[in-house]
Amino acid sequence: MLKESPADAQIVSHKLMLRAGLVRQTAAGIYAWLPLGYRVLRNIEQIVRDEQDRSGAIEMLMPTLQSAELWRESGRYDAYGPEMLRIRDRHDRDMLYGPTNEEMITSIFRAETRSYRDLPRTLYHIQWKFRDEVRPRFGVMRGREFLMKDAYSFDIDEAGARMSYYTQMLAYLRTFQRLGIQAVPMKAASGPIGGDLSHEFIVLAPNGESEVFYDAAYEGFDWHQSDIDYGDERDLQRLFKQVSDTYAATDETHDEKQWGKVKEANRRTGRGIEVGHIFYFGDKYSAAMDLKVSGRDGHEVTPLMGSYGIGVSRLVGAIIEASHDDAGIIWPEGVAPWRVGLVTMRADDQPSREAAEMLYGHLLGAGVETLYDDRDERGGAKLASMDLIGLPWQLIVGPRGIATGSVELKKRSTGEKHELSIESALSRLVGA
Amino acid sequence: MLKESPADAQIVSHKLMLRAGLVRQTAAGIYAWLPLGYRVLRNIEQIVRDEQDRSGAIEMLMPTLQSAELWRESGRYDAYGPEMLRIRDRHDRDMLYGPTNEEMITSIFRAETRSYRDLPRTLYHIQWKFRDEVRPRFGVMRGREFLMKDAYSFDIDEAGARMSYYTQMLAYLRTFQRLGIQAVPMKAASGPIGGDLSHEFIVLAPNGESEVFYDAAYEGFDWHQSDIDYGDERDLQRLFKQVSDTYAATDETHDEKQWGKVKEANRRTGRGIEVGHIFYFGDKYSAAMDLKVSGRDGHEVTPLMGSYGIGVSRLVGAIIEASHDDAGIIWPEGVAPWRVGLVTMRADDQPSREAAEMLYGHLLGAGVETLYDDRDERGGAKLASMDLIGLPWQLIVGPRGIATGSVELKKRSTGEKHELSIESALSRLVGA
Repeated sequence: MLKESPADAQIVSHKLMLRAGLVRQTAAGIYAWLPLGYRVLRNIEQIVRDEQDRSGAIEMLMPTLQSAELWRESGRYDAYGPEMLRIRDRHDRDMLYGPTNEEMITSIFRAETRSYRDLPRTLYHIQWKFRDEVRPRFGVMRGREFLMKDAYSFDIDEAGARMSYYTQMLAYLRTFQRLGIQAVPMKAASGPIGGDLSHEFIVLAPNGESEVFYDAAYEGFDWHQSDIDYGDERDLQRLFKQVSDTYAATDETHDEKQWGKVKEANRRTGRGIEVGHIFYFGDKYSAAMDLKVSGRDGHEVTPLMGSYGIGVSRLVGAIIEASHDDAGIIWPEGVAPWRVGLVTMRADDQPSREAAEMLYGHLLGAGVETLYDDRDERGGAKLASMDLIGLPWQLIVGPRGIATGSVELKKRSTGEKHELSIESALSRLVGA
Repeated sequence: MLKESPADAQIVSHKLMLRAGLVRQTAAGIYAWLPLGYRVLRNIEQIVRDEQDRSGAIEMLMPTLQSAELWRESGRYDAYGPEMLRIRDRHDRDMLYGPTNEEMITSIFRAETRSYRDLPRTLYHIQWKFRDEVRPRFGVMRGREFLMKDAYSFDIDEAGARMSYYTQMLAYLRTFQRLGIQAVPMKAASGPIGGDLSHEFIVLAPNGESEVFYDAAYEGFDWHQSDIDYGDERDLQRLFKQVSDTYAATDETHDEKQWGKVKEANRRTGRGIEVGHIFYFGDKYSAAMDLKVSGRDGHEVTPLMGSYGIGVSRLVGAIIEASHDDAGIIWPEGVAPWRVGLVTMRADDQPSREAAEMLYGHLLGAGVETLYDDRDERGGAKLASMDLIGLPWQLIVGPRGIATGSVELKKRSTGEKHELSIESALSRLVGA
């Protein structure tokens, strides 16, 4: 079986994911999510789902395997290169492992929808995809089997399609903010129909695949402010204008003249990792696959579509790239596998163990997700593990402190430590 | 693209799932879960997960595609028939779409575990599997791509393995009870190593694949009673004895002599659908794949394993087979896509619409999952749809009732209807 050691890993997130036991490679570019990694993956997935739901998108689930027939309808079966994993079933039917779902959603929508009254509609699913990369690398950042959220919007006209696009843009900004990362929407190079409606969401990280340029104003925006309402078209237009007016571009779309207009102190450059992409493509699939609905005036109309992807499994790596130090991962609060790591410095010390168990009971009782490391190992090694796996808070119980009723609370992101009474340590963790 | 109409469907659950818009076939034996069906699938998945977590099993996630190499280690690559979907990737490596995960979990455990101190351990995941059925049928009950929960236990000795088995048995009994179905554990025909540790969980349904015989005592058992504790070995032993002493068998294991001892009034026979299977297989995979941990005395030990499956997507069909009438599906409360269906008999009647919107706001505010059908269609057609999709409660607002401040509340499972004031209808739904 294919083994992979942290030493083989080329980038820091991959090394840390292997060292911390988040994933294990089971074939080239294919990973099993170990319990610790799976908790993070599910937290990310749940934030993505929440924000899709809030935006009015409706969840469904399409299967991983698709029939080749569907892709012949759009003409992509032959056009798609060797990254498409082609499969033949026992009856010699051509199948494939879906790398994306435009064809399938169009065919489902075609079968289920008859009238303009069912539009606008945005449907999404969170499902495993496969792209047979020639040289998978960077761990889950460029794996072959990966988890993606993909949404598809259907509108009756271009004005409506714009609103669907703006709605997803806002959902993305809110999603990434809740994930605790700075993902900046950057104009993407778009095909003939994209116009201004194509953005990549990029997280700054030294190992990023592309060069990015953006206005530091993005760092101050709060996308969760209550005066932006999905139901209000003017709010959405204002949001889109704000994004369009605030410079951000990859090297592909970079414009030196516009860049020159950004205040010098505000110019941020670096490398970035793409974690999302939103894209309007008009009637590309609906026309090719003959999707029509009856319009208001009784005539048939070809709906206009957009697609909206977030790389859910890739985000685990991207967040680590953006948030770590020499000692290990630093999880943002929203995605951490547990909020608190509880450590006894000496598991064989009776008063320490009793205090730790009492603390554990209180934290669980108060709904604070806590990992309790009661292993009989050296205290130093246990603290190093806690730094490595990156929980936001460490609650450390040692014989010396317990003798005077105190424990140590450490904040992983800053390294700040405080010696506190048991009561105030608890109230900080439960209250916050 | 492959179409499928309710008329083609051979069994009632499949017909109802197509008519109610729960799923849509996208290739032979492969289904997309439409929004309504996906809500049910997720509710079932979440109950399964909850009960696995409560039992102490730890969640992780293994990928759908596996390398053939792994299956050559156990000898199953050649032994497994044409139901295994074999795939070749762009580098001509042999892969397969996992039909089950014994090999993979054994190899992961082998790589991650060194010592008896890490045992006992039960790991599970909920992931899509593929079996290339020669003739897929009965919709999601016998599809090719299906969602399964599979757990794997690792123990140091047989006494421990028994406890892990009993633990999963209890988790299964609790899971199915929460799902609102009567799934009876039946002794399964077991291989040379199974002994008494192999049970199928079977739901009674006229379209079931096997004949079943069981003692009606099962219908009275409450597996959630608080005096059964996962941590208490005697509780688990008592549970296993209770199941072993209460007759239940399929035609494969049926024993006329034992059956004769069941009180005549208690003899239940019929057909059943398998929705779960738990199975002890000792060192079958750990020995073949050379999984060893260091034992208490320093010598190496080969862990003993069991596996525990629940057909999550199959359950959607099985529940419908067990719970429907001529008008449609009758969802048990725990899995229903919404708890309440709110219907206006005349959407163009202003007072009705206002009352319905007020009710909708109140129900959502109180956290009652409600589907509001405000479409401008005939009231009768809307009620028929509600019966078809089977939400537990229907709240019906019509012009005549509203004139006197009353609405109608209908319980789907019994058909009982009550004319109530708006206030008492609300308090019934919110209070319950």
